[in-house]
Amino acid sequence: MTLFDTQEYRERVRRTQAKMAEIGVDLLLVASPANQFYLTGYDGWSFYTPQMVVVAADEEDPIWVGRAMDAVGAKFTAYLAPERVIPYPDGYVASQQRHPMEFLVEVIKARGWQARHIGVEMDDYYYTARWHEILTTGLPDATFLDAFLAVNWVRMRKSDREIEFLMQAGQIAAAAMQAAMDAARPGVRQCDAMAELYRVTTAGTPEFGGTFTCKPPNAMAGEYCSAPHLSWTEAPLKAEEMFYIELGGCRHRYHAPLARCLYLGRPPQAMADLAKVIAEGLEAVLDAVRPGVACEELEAAWRKVIARHGIAKESRIGYPVGIGYPPTWGELTCSLRQGDKTVLEPNMTFHCIPALWLDDWGLVISESFVVTETGAVTFADFPRKLFSLE
Amino acid sequence: MTLFDTQEYRERVRRTQAKMAEIGVDLLLVASPANQFYLTGYDGWSFYTPQMVVVAADEEDPIWVGRAMDAVGAKFTAYLAPERVIPYPDGYVASQQRHPMEFLVEVIKARGWQARHIGVEMDDYYYTARWHEILTTGLPDATFLDAFLAVNWVRMRKSDREIEFLMQAGQIAAAAMQAAMDAARPGVRQCDAMAELYRVTTAGTPEFGGTFTCKPPNAMAGEYCSAPHLSWTEAPLKAEEMFYIELGGCRHRYHAPLARCLYLGRPPQAMADLAKVIAEGLEAVLDAVRPGVACEELEAAWRKVIARHGIAKESRIGYPVGIGYPPTWGELTCSLRQGDKTVLEPNMTFHCIPALWLDDWGLVISESFVVTETGAVTFADFPRKLFSLE
Repeated sequence: MTLFDTQEYRERVRRTQAKMAEIGVDLLLVASPANQFYLTGYDGWSFYTPQMVVVAADEEDPIWVGRAMDAVGAKFTAYLAPERVIPYPDGYVASQQRHPMEFLVEVIKARGWQARHIGVEMDDYYYTARWHEILTTGLPDATFLDAFLAVNWVRMRKSDREIEFLMQAGQIAAAAMQAAMDAARPGVRQCDAMAELYRVTTAGTPEFGGTFTCKPPNAMAGEYCSAPHLSWTEAPLKAEEMFYIELGGCRHRYHAPLARCLYLGRPPQAMADLAKVIAEGLEAVLDAVRPGVACEELEAAWRKVIARHGIAKESRIGYPVGIGYPPTWGELTCSLRQGDKTVLEPNMTFHCIPALWLDDWGLVISESFVVTETGAVTFADFPRKLFSLE
Repeated sequence: MTLFDTQEYRERVRRTQAKMAEIGVDLLLVASPANQFYLTGYDGWSFYTPQMVVVAADEEDPIWVGRAMDAVGAKFTAYLAPERVIPYPDGYVASQQRHPMEFLVEVIKARGWQARHIGVEMDDYYYTARWHEILTTGLPDATFLDAFLAVNWVRMRKSDREIEFLMQAGQIAAAAMQAAMDAARPGVRQCDAMAELYRVTTAGTPEFGGTFTCKPPNAMAGEYCSAPHLSWTEAPLKAEEMFYIELGGCRHRYHAPLARCLYLGRPPQAMADLAKVIAEGLEAVLDAVRPGVACEELEAAWRKVIARHGIAKESRIGYPVGIGYPPTWGELTCSLRQGDKTVLEPNMTFHCIPALWLDDWGLVISESFVVTETGAVTFADFPRKLFSLE
């Protein structure tokens, strides 16, 4: 029933325990739903009420603590034995009187873990200031340490089965991009073009199904293209405007992002020229990918190309991808940017998105890829160019 | 360009400032993207990097602090004057060296706010333990107070224009449910039925466009129906199994949830009977809705009906809805459950979802509605029954 076999989950737990030893933690509280999914398989849109996966340094399997009605979902998705799924009653949900972290304090005490060196994901989206306050107050004998990103770093090097899911996600991404490109014409409402995109990301391909992505596409037309994270509207697309799409294909929570632009007409020369620079820069990055190369070297390859064309860009050009839960499919560890010394290893996976934002418009061509012994292999197969209706 | 006029935003800010006075706060840090959207109009999928809206007790308009590339989006979506949009450089993003909250500390000091009574949303998804640590350390002269849900409570009573968006969202929800019901047949892959649902939520109606929802539908078939928050798969739907769908229609970030079940055949008598009990209980709740009634009285109306049929249910049966950002479209304030004394007022909006979960399956019929002087008005118009292929 689980996506991966028990051996793979236990290997992930062992690697996490090695990381815990490295940072001096013997009990890890995992608040991130992506990390919970990675370590146990547990999957469900239930993380809007508090839930936690707990990894002890001296136990083979983690425990899952969450809402009673969601403990049922663990039986379908997690590799954990039933006694390692620990439900709290519904009265803890959205209550001003009691908090699920109080329940967790009792679970920790009952297992004799109250004086441990406890690692918590201090800056994770799902580890709130209040959770931390309740835990530190309730467990005064424990030593709390910041273990933010500890599991994220463990996730970076993917298994072959994870890569397989990402390659499938890439196929879905390419099909969805094609559907959006085919639907986008002057006079068509932006939302109707996006509906075709969503139809494909959800249905997937005839061979394997799609699912939801952890975030919507960033899709903007016209002047909205100058802002990278806006959404489409119900306005009709217009001739001679840009339609910018950054989407993700998703397979079993593994995301392959892909971004392209469509110009609804014949692009002005400046745009066509800029697109060529971006494509050239992106190719330079992909050509530079191999194990042993540092993240900053990939960015340098890009910067060298755009500098030759007289362009500078401040923001990073990429990040690792894989499992996505809202609000992001990024893994939050390293970045493709100056100063990042993280060294590429085989089966690491990235989204390189060297967008250029101008005052009135922006342009993007991106690729998601896996690092192999012989270089980058992209998840999607889609032409690297500015599309147009010429 | 903004969804609401400046007067409406300023009215929201004034009501928030009144709430601040009530709880002894003269500077409010708003981390919740839904609350940021409510107070400023700012909308964009940019909240995966830290951003904050700051409301001072003595200033008419808030300030927005966020990533430089996203400051552009404020110009299209927020009512704020350009000088109230304060960008931080990209080097703060996903960095181990510097954190956007350090930048915010400097902004607060530069405005002379460093000794204020600062309200923070201690348990909001987007206010992490680390943010709190940086702010409290960086502003030692300030007094920090928990203002979690302060803005959420202000949001509860909607304006007429907000209700208009919710009514439109309800129309989209009903159309999407119909599309899923039409597509779901034995032999059809679950993901293909869901693709039709997504096509409609994204396209909307011919009169007004759809958009993304802040969470995917919960859609489960067969034995998965016993777990409330799982997702569909690529497996084909089977004859004589249940297909459970809880979806949302969304209009400009305002969500109208709707849940129904389809039995792919002629439902066993026990299911048909249970569906009638749920429908009867739901009608009893809707009949009990009027200003002045407490949330617990709505739950009591439901409990009385199911008790007559020998059924008990522990979990709450509903919550307020409106603006949704991931991971939830719930407003997190009150609940429809025993002991909740919150009193209904006109233009409050709720999702009543009295699902019943059994060991091997679950059943649901839900409605989202607004409280009016004369009772509940539902956002969607969809028959309240168990659907079937008889």
